[in-house]
Amino acid sequence: MSEIIELARRAREASYALADASRATKDGALHAMAAALREHTDAIVAANAKDVAAAREAGTPESTVDRLALDPARVDGMAAGLEQLAGLTDPVGEVVRGYTLPNGLELRQVRVPFGVVGIIYEARPNVTADAAGICLKSGNAVLLRGSSSAKSSNEAIIAVLRDAAESAGLPADVVQGVPTDRAAVKELMQARGLVDVLIPRGGAGLIQTVVGESSVPVIETGVGNCHVYVDADADLDLALGILLNAKTQRPSVCNAAESLLVHAAVADEFLARALPALTDAGVTVHGDPTVVAASKNLAPDQHMVAGKSGVADQDVVVRGAVVDATDEDFGTEYNSLDLSAAVVDSLEAAVQHIRRYSSGHTEAIITRSQSAARRFTQAVDSAAVVVNASTRFTDGGEFGFGAEIGISTQKLHARGPMGLPEMTSTKYVVTGEGQLRT
Amino acid sequence: MSEIIELARRAREASYALADASRATKDGALHAMAAALREHTDAIVAANAKDVAAAREAGTPESTVDRLALDPARVDGMAAGLEQLAGLTDPVGEVVRGYTLPNGLELRQVRVPFGVVGIIYEARPNVTADAAGICLKSGNAVLLRGSSSAKSSNEAIIAVLRDAAESAGLPADVVQGVPTDRAAVKELMQARGLVDVLIPRGGAGLIQTVVGESSVPVIETGVGNCHVYVDADADLDLALGILLNAKTQRPSVCNAAESLLVHAAVADEFLARALPALTDAGVTVHGDPTVVAASKNLAPDQHMVAGKSGVADQDVVVRGAVVDATDEDFGTEYNSLDLSAAVVDSLEAAVQHIRRYSSGHTEAIITRSQSAARRFTQAVDSAAVVVNASTRFTDGGEFGFGAEIGISTQKLHARGPMGLPEMTSTKYVVTGEGQLRT
Repeated sequence: MSEIIELARRAREASYALADASRATKDGALHAMAAALREHTDAIVAANAKDVAAAREAGTPESTVDRLALDPARVDGMAAGLEQLAGLTDPVGEVVRGYTLPNGLELRQVRVPFGVVGIIYEARPNVTADAAGICLKSGNAVLLRGSSSAKSSNEAIIAVLRDAAESAGLPADVVQGVPTDRAAVKELMQARGLVDVLIPRGGAGLIQTVVGESSVPVIETGVGNCHVYVDADADLDLALGILLNAKTQRPSVCNAAESLLVHAAVADEFLARALPALTDAGVTVHGDPTVVAASKNLAPDQHMVAGKSGVADQDVVVRGAVVDATDEDFGTEYNSLDLSAAVVDSLEAAVQHIRRYSSGHTEAIITRSQSAARRFTQAVDSAAVVVNASTRFTDGGEFGFGAEIGISTQKLHARGPMGLPEMTSTKYVVTGEGQLRT
Repeated sequence: MSEIIELARRAREASYALADASRATKDGALHAMAAALREHTDAIVAANAKDVAAAREAGTPESTVDRLALDPARVDGMAAGLEQLAGLTDPVGEVVRGYTLPNGLELRQVRVPFGVVGIIYEARPNVTADAAGICLKSGNAVLLRGSSSAKSSNEAIIAVLRDAAESAGLPADVVQGVPTDRAAVKELMQARGLVDVLIPRGGAGLIQTVVGESSVPVIETGVGNCHVYVDADADLDLALGILLNAKTQRPSVCNAAESLLVHAAVADEFLARALPALTDAGVTVHGDPTVVAASKNLAPDQHMVAGKSGVADQDVVVRGAVVDATDEDFGTEYNSLDLSAAVVDSLEAAVQHIRRYSSGHTEAIITRSQSAARRFTQAVDSAAVVVNASTRFTDGGEFGFGAEIGISTQKLHARGPMGLPEMTSTKYVVTGEGQLRT
């Protein structure tokens, strides 16, 4: 038997004990895990230092090294996250619906754990504790496949979590690490029937690989090419504030705005204010011809158009400027201080643009019109559709879920921020007194 | 562009109009489709006659030909099914949850259609109208891929449904047929992003093919190796009635019982009654050694043990008898008058047996004990767990759903009978007044 099959079988066995565990037992384990992380801070930081040194030796960019690095404060943050999970309602056992059938059968649809969940994720080692905690609270045994660059950190954290789970009366195998080699992840993706669901957390490349190669059901997370549409009836002050917040408050995350659409009726007035504000904030605006033309009215240091014939010159990308957009720009999740921008002739044209280019994460409309808001929220088919607020609110914490394993951009099972209920399945419990089918 | 991609693009376009359609428009289309089916009964029956003649010429068994055949009464049944759908609540627009966040944002999670659904199904042409109706009511454009043996029937039905949809103000492309060749279905299974979900309806082979080869998300339906467990505390009269109902009332369907487990404490008494009753009803019991030993007390014509050493002789399968079970028997969905049977020493042993062999469809316990019922419903992880009633109740109609597209045996998205709400996704609608993320 291969190592992955063996790990998955042990996870399945452990999942039975975890499914039987009371909320008190699970919360006790989360507190034990938090305490153990704090107690072993030095060992975890020391293990992490090896990963950090190896990353630096390999010439990894400092921004990536920073995401990888742990210090006592970050370990404490992981512990605090587990304690917070202990305070959340247990999703397992929730009766989703229930009624009595005409023949007297009592029907109840009840939340149950999936069983075994696989998480495939990239460098940040705090995901290890975070994902383990969410899976444990929702009653799922977890197989954690972190990146090889965080191998030493993850092994140290998983060892601490396993011991703590065991001390709290659960099998250690409710949390297991998966080898980081390529063969192991391939086997994990093919372990249909042994692993109930795989959740990839990371960049678009990782997610595409998992989606393309898995026979295990996958919940796709995270790619966000989010739009802000400024309607003809928009309050332009509100629109400017929301646009700047959505683009610049934290440009590296999936719910940041990547594209601006402006209704032609307000384009001149809005762009005259928005383009200087954006470029002042360091944003490079990749505009359609109308946007670029509007930028000619900016002060000379505030616009620089690369190329001449509507095609951006990729070699000359200037920060804080307005450049020509390519078609590719409108489909790009920049995760940086870049923004594509176009002027549209109608709300329907904005909807068409979004249908063509959006990744289905979050789109916002800024409008005072009730009918425009109603039409936009009806016609735009994304995980979150926002009226008069920043796209940055699409987040499990902001939505009041208390925990988040990721943001689903697929339509099956879960869509949008996934909290604890989204980490469960249901079963029907049917109780009778001898009913027969006729 | 390939034909399938083109079909899927047209389905996507049609899905936008369908998502916008009011319940009144959709119900009007369902009534128009029902009326059109009745009006064109002769043409549909004539088209079906070609399929039936071809099937007979190809030497198809009469039982299969019967499932394929349409007469005016069956066409009328299809029409009545569509009218019944029109009477059901529209799932689209249902607010699943909603509250106001501390910052004043109003959050609502709302049911929305998937968009484009693909159904891959086997011979029975009534599925064509049934699936088209369920998809239309839930706001989804549908790509129908029936079997080549029903090609002429399906084409006739789809043409009638398309015309009727158009007459009711919807695009004809809300219902489309997919070519029956192998290349087309392969492309359909790879149309990720163009098709939102695939639902295979048919035998285990079809379902395994679709699950294994699709990059489009799949909802797995239907395989049922259902167990009836007779507990130490069972009312044996109740148990016998339920067992016979679950096994013999309609043995060919997925919610029929395929395996009997009896607690050792009541095995002698129960088997002395159950084995004659089963064999009298024409059931071949594939028993473990204890069951086979109990069968020795039956009248000579009521038992015949094939083989000698605990291994059934596959060449000698006798109807209405007790034969030795192989390990394979316990994992088999017979869909016939066969039943595997074993004696277990405890409820926990029954749970272990079910974990090992069950397909996760439906398992029943017969018991007067509250604690046994609680333990069984907790520990058995199947789509439906039944106490003191027949397994045959796991069905969308019996559960009061009004319609059923299939019975999911997977844990993601939908589990158990799938009605109209299970044919939808959700999106979050977030309404504010300028809220920014800090």
